[in-house]
Amino acid sequence: MANTQKPINVAILGATGAVGQRFIQLLEGHPWFRVAELVASERSAGKTYSEAARWVLSGNPPADLAAQEVLPLDADLQSPLVFSALPGDAAKEVEWRLAGAGHVVCSNASAYRMQPEVPILLPEINAEHAQLIKVQRQKHGWSGGIATNSNCTAAPVAMALAPLRPFGIEAVQVVSMQAVSGAGYPGVPSLDIIDNVVPYIGGEEPKLETEPRKMLGALAGDQIKFLDCVMSATCTRVPVLDSHLVSVSVRFSHDVSEDNLRDAWTAFVGPDPVPGLPSAPESPVVVRSEPDRPQPRRDRDTGNGMSTVVGRIRPCPVMGGWKFLALAHNTVRGAAGCSILNAELLVENGYL
Amino acid sequence: MANTQKPINVAILGATGAVGQRFIQLLEGHPWFRVAELVASERSAGKTYSEAARWVLSGNPPADLAAQEVLPLDADLQSPLVFSALPGDAAKEVEWRLAGAGHVVCSNASAYRMQPEVPILLPEINAEHAQLIKVQRQKHGWSGGIATNSNCTAAPVAMALAPLRPFGIEAVQVVSMQAVSGAGYPGVPSLDIIDNVVPYIGGEEPKLETEPRKMLGALAGDQIKFLDCVMSATCTRVPVLDSHLVSVSVRFSHDVSEDNLRDAWTAFVGPDPVPGLPSAPESPVVVRSEPDRPQPRRDRDTGNGMSTVVGRIRPCPVMGGWKFLALAHNTVRGAAGCSILNAELLVENGYL
Amino acid sequence: MANTQKPINVAILGATGAVGQRFIQLLEGHPWFRVAELVASERSAGKTYSEAARWVLSGNPPADLAAQEVLPLDADLQSPLVFSALPGDAAKEVEWRLAGAGHVVCSNASAYRMQPEVPILLPEINAEHAQLIKVQRQKHGWSGGIATNSNCTAAPVAMALAPLRPFGIEAVQVVSMQAVSGAGYPGVPSLDIIDNVVPYIGGEEPKLETEPRKMLGALAGDQIKFLDCVMSATCTRVPVLDSHLVSVSVRFSHDVSEDNLRDAWTAFVGPDPVPGLPSAPESPVVVRSEPDRPQPRRDRDTGNGMSTVVGRIRPCPVMGGWKFLALAHNTVRGAAGCSILNAELLVENGYL
Amino acid sequence: MANTQKPINVAILGATGAVGQRFIQLLEGHPWFRVAELVASERSAGKTYSEAARWVLSGNPPADLAAQEVLPLDADLQSPLVFSALPGDAAKEVEWRLAGAGHVVCSNASAYRMQPEVPILLPEINAEHAQLIKVQRQKHGWSGGIATNSNCTAAPVAMALAPLRPFGIEAVQVVSMQAVSGAGYPGVPSLDIIDNVVPYIGGEEPKLETEPRKMLGALAGDQIKFLDCVMSATCTRVPVLDSHLVSVSVRFSHDVSEDNLRDAWTAFVGPDPVPGLPSAPESPVVVRSEPDRPQPRRDRDTGNGMSTVVGRIRPCPVMGGWKFLALAHNTVRGAAGCSILNAELLVENGYL
Repeated sequence: MANTQKPINVAILGATGAVGQRFIQLLEGHPWFRVAELVASERSAGKTYSEAARWVLSGNPPADLAAQEVLPLDADLQSPLVFSALPGDAAKEVEWRLAGAGHVVCSNASAYRMQPEVPILLPEINAEHAQLIKVQRQKHGWSGGIATNSNCTAAPVAMALAPLRPFGIEAVQVVSMQAVSGAGYPGVPSLDIIDNVVPYIGGEEPKLETEPRKMLGALAGDQIKFLDCVMSATCTRVPVLDSHLVSVSVRFSHDVSEDNLRDAWTAFVGPDPVPGLPSAPESPVVVRSEPDRPQPRRDRDTGNGMSTVVGRIRPCPVMGGWKFLALAHNTVRGAAGCSILNAELLVENGYL
Repeated sequence: MANTQKPINVAILGATGAVGQRFIQLLEGHPWFRVAELVASERSAGKTYSEAARWVLSGNPPADLAAQEVLPLDADLQSPLVFSALPGDAAKEVEWRLAGAGHVVCSNASAYRMQPEVPILLPEINAEHAQLIKVQRQKHGWSGGIATNSNCTAAPVAMALAPLRPFGIEAVQVVSMQAVSGAGYPGVPSLDIIDNVVPYIGGEEPKLETEPRKMLGALAGDQIKFLDCVMSATCTRVPVLDSHLVSVSVRFSHDVSEDNLRDAWTAFVGPDPVPGLPSAPESPVVVRSEPDRPQPRRDRDTGNGMSTVVGRIRPCPVMGGWKFLALAHNTVRGAAGCSILNAELLVENGYL
Repeated sequence: MANTQKPINVAILGATGAVGQRFIQLLEGHPWFRVAELVASERSAGKTYSEAARWVLSGNPPADLAAQEVLPLDADLQSPLVFSALPGDAAKEVEWRLAGAGHVVCSNASAYRMQPEVPILLPEINAEHAQLIKVQRQKHGWSGGIATNSNCTAAPVAMALAPLRPFGIEAVQVVSMQAVSGAGYPGVPSLDIIDNVVPYIGGEEPKLETEPRKMLGALAGDQIKFLDCVMSATCTRVPVLDSHLVSVSVRFSHDVSEDNLRDAWTAFVGPDPVPGLPSAPESPVVVRSEPDRPQPRRDRDTGNGMSTVVGRIRPCPVMGGWKFLALAHNTVRGAAGCSILNAELLVENGYL
Repeated sequence: MANTQKPINVAILGATGAVGQRFIQLLEGHPWFRVAELVASERSAGKTYSEAARWVLSGNPPADLAAQEVLPLDADLQSPLVFSALPGDAAKEVEWRLAGAGHVVCSNASAYRMQPEVPILLPEINAEHAQLIKVQRQKHGWSGGIATNSNCTAAPVAMALAPLRPFGIEAVQVVSMQAVSGAGYPGVPSLDIIDNVVPYIGGEEPKLETEPRKMLGALAGDQIKFLDCVMSATCTRVPVLDSHLVSVSVRFSHDVSEDNLRDAWTAFVGPDPVPGLPSAPESPVVVRSEPDRPQPRRDRDTGNGMSTVVGRIRPCPVMGGWKFLALAHNTVRGAAGCSILNAELLVENGYL
């Protein structure tokens, strides 16, 4: 099926939802990919995209896509590359079927993240994990494959920790302050969040305590050896539209100075060919020195929303290590943007 | 000077500011205290209160006080009891002078909190610290005295930890999500906080890492022996009007079960005569069992804003202990309400 | 069926929704009424109230009701008085059936507001409309009856205009800024309203252009003669939790001075027995003189949420009359609180 | 002094404030103008820009300007073109002096807007008013001149009304919902605006009732003949960061259909050379057809923040004409962006 002459046609699953919309927005004018198929649930199928989708981002969907017919989830897709913004249950069935039918699926869903032969790709930190696609093909007889991106809160945590792996990460405490867009649309009722914080997000803390360990792990044969560290997470929802802020405290096995941390973050770029991919930010990790940054509204668009912004580096007397704040745009770096970068890596690696 | 026949006349220093207003609001109809003197900076002195103060709470100031003339900071006050909502520098000079002139000053300012002979009173947890007033009188030849209440974020931390002291508190990590009213009026600009979090509050983290240790300490002769534990704090500002939410992780020297924690909190009432004081809440610590509580807007008025609400009790794999959320109303329990309760204790103890 | 010895048992239809919860909150400790039956849709029926309802107000539901079983909409209710917080379609069927079965239904639903023999009661301004209950009984052979309260935005408009009827109201322009609680729960998604205004509320403007004319009309035989004035409305949703603010411009047939307006509002109390009813506010209309009031957060609780607050009275050069701002609490005066006051009037008038 | 070979050097007065920052942001990469001089009050002068300015927009100031020294208000400026974001009093003195010294001042301040020989330029609707610069030069013996842009709320009103002038605008009612950035920084305290609306903005309503009449007027000899219509304004502040939304009702002397309105808006482009200026939006007025638009957050960036977005066109029974909503970005179209477009027009017209 694959025709990888660029532009490569792509399908978007769950195209009408909040993350689906972000896929459409970010793929407008993409140098390699062309949105060819919009796929959504039965309720939307058969309508034009503008009829089916309540556009929640700024401005409008691209005019050509607005007029395009939405396909059902069981459509016979033609695009070699598929982006999935499906909810859990639908993702489980559809993504597996499409991978078997020869599509490369870059998924934002959590369904297969912890499946041993499926990578949680964050190219700057674990591009080598893409080789699990070969394991999938061998094991399941597929010509396609599935690559996931991480939970939207795990993204800034893993990205901020990755350059620090040489210092021996032993333990990590995370408290998140997450944006409402992380819950999709309609998502968080305004009656719950105006003048309020909701200190609970269903199912989020266990993800945050495991996914980063897989992402930060090393490829060992046909699976990932998780990073050997202990993590503890508390997740809260705050009245912010986009981007998740995390307070992180780390204990290292090595002696580490503040300069060591800064230098590691500043020097971090990720392995070839990642820095040259179209969606890769110039600096995967940006360190700010002002006393009151990073801030969600003022820093979320750093690197077109693909950078993780770190600041407020201070010793942590309890961990005997360091604490800092980190932030990433949850629907860009933590969702659609990361899936697109993952797809670019898979194209460059020849999986498509 | 003292005339402690009730009602006792009180003066409010810094009466026009946000905490000063909360003093006025909470003292309306108080069974023991009667607001007799309103004191503020030069800019306000000589005006009526309604001219001088931009009322930022709901409704209106009491009509009799609205028409009362505001006195200057150097006025010769007649009230035996003084509540201070002054900013740091002014507090330092004025509170000391008034204590020397025979007034009992219950202060919300930070100026003297760490002074060895000045207690940070939170009556349910350290009523015995009130005895430091005697030390002050002896040392400075005063007939008055100074009692402070804690930083508004330290209040829920100390209150939640106090019932857990028997389990051997060794280490505490705190991440706060604080309301904008904590910065007073005009305080936090709306351009900084709408759709945003500001992960920094000047001078707050050091207070949060020391004040609870003094509050939780034991009176040893003429000073306080701080609780021997290590604390680490990260303070953030969120778009919430009132009440500070804190995520707390604790390591204990003893083995502790979730039931141990619940039981300790639920049984906690504080020593006599505290539970019978007019402003004491029925339950100093209220434990909620819903998965998504405590929430600032929905829980801040528990116990008329004087209770600390705790929830989301979970093991912390990093600390090897427990983590939970705690919340208290920052301008009631964390400021004016606590000062009033402190004053009630001092009256009952005969210091006034 | 009727047993009007107080306390009178009441049933709440739609008890689990946002307005239903407000009914429960406001009826706690009511001197005449006792909540005996909680009724909701099939999804909730059979569960206890605390299982069925996600409490969105502050604090908790009363403990005795929390444990009570929720009844289905087709239950054989025993309470002579029924408060309805049902959505439109359900209200249409159930309220009619209950009125026929001898219940007095005080409804917050819009289903029967424009029915000629059904009053839209706002007791201070149109207590005489209650006589339509007799018309209903005669026409339909009922022993019960239906009284509605107005749309939540029409309430402050009608209340502010009522005292001005003697000046000859000819034309009224209204622009509303409405709270999110007006849309119920889950209602307005936070992604739609944080840092935003939505200048549209489905079906709201036609209601606002007709209901006040019925409410302000005169009883003429067995129906209401609408107030003869022309109204124009624009309705918007703003990021406010509770209370609707309206900008109103009026043209009068008489010459009117600012003092005339102030005097009319200040003197307004409503006819006997309304001022003595348990839920009647001391002042139905409160005039504020500050340049920047009324404000939703600071004025919504005036008169326990039952007063309409008016301010910023200025000549309108376009209308040749006056313009002002008015505000009322949408889920109290504009919904549950008004229904309760209506019921008190009906009891006092002997309809129950 | 003038050296109008492009790029033209420009100075920014009040460079550290919120509007000054927007000037810097919008001028980054401008094809004609180069920011050469940053000017601010004594408090900032002598510091580098990054020391003096607390950057409140997203991201960072351009690196070269961040390191540049801020000049005092009485500096001897070299730039032929000056953008002024000064507060009223400072603007009055400094702008007059600079115009006399040969600079062309494009001002966002209100000081000279109602001065007969000073235009309030909105190029698409009144480019001919630029000829008042000649009147200024003749009258005051200047080689420079002053052009203002309108109040930020008057901008969308004037822009939406301009294409409707042929229909005979007789009367206009406006109710505004304005963003907090309109008050500058620190501006509106968060304690005033979270969960609230403030229905008052000092001095704003009189501006809104006069400035549009000047802007929409015709050049008659050496002054502007104001549009002969009556205007009434109510101004409110809502919890929105950027862009002012206005509800407008208009009475026309002609019969007008909805199609007439749509056609007039859609066809509107402004006279040559305006459509070709670098900052001119493709469509000065964009009409949206969704029932719930325009919305501040979703529409403010239309045309890079330079378009006025109109929607919800409905007959107004009170005015006997039409009502609609209009929106423009207050710190772009209503401030810095408009000043830059004005400057482009003055360059193209040869005044510089």
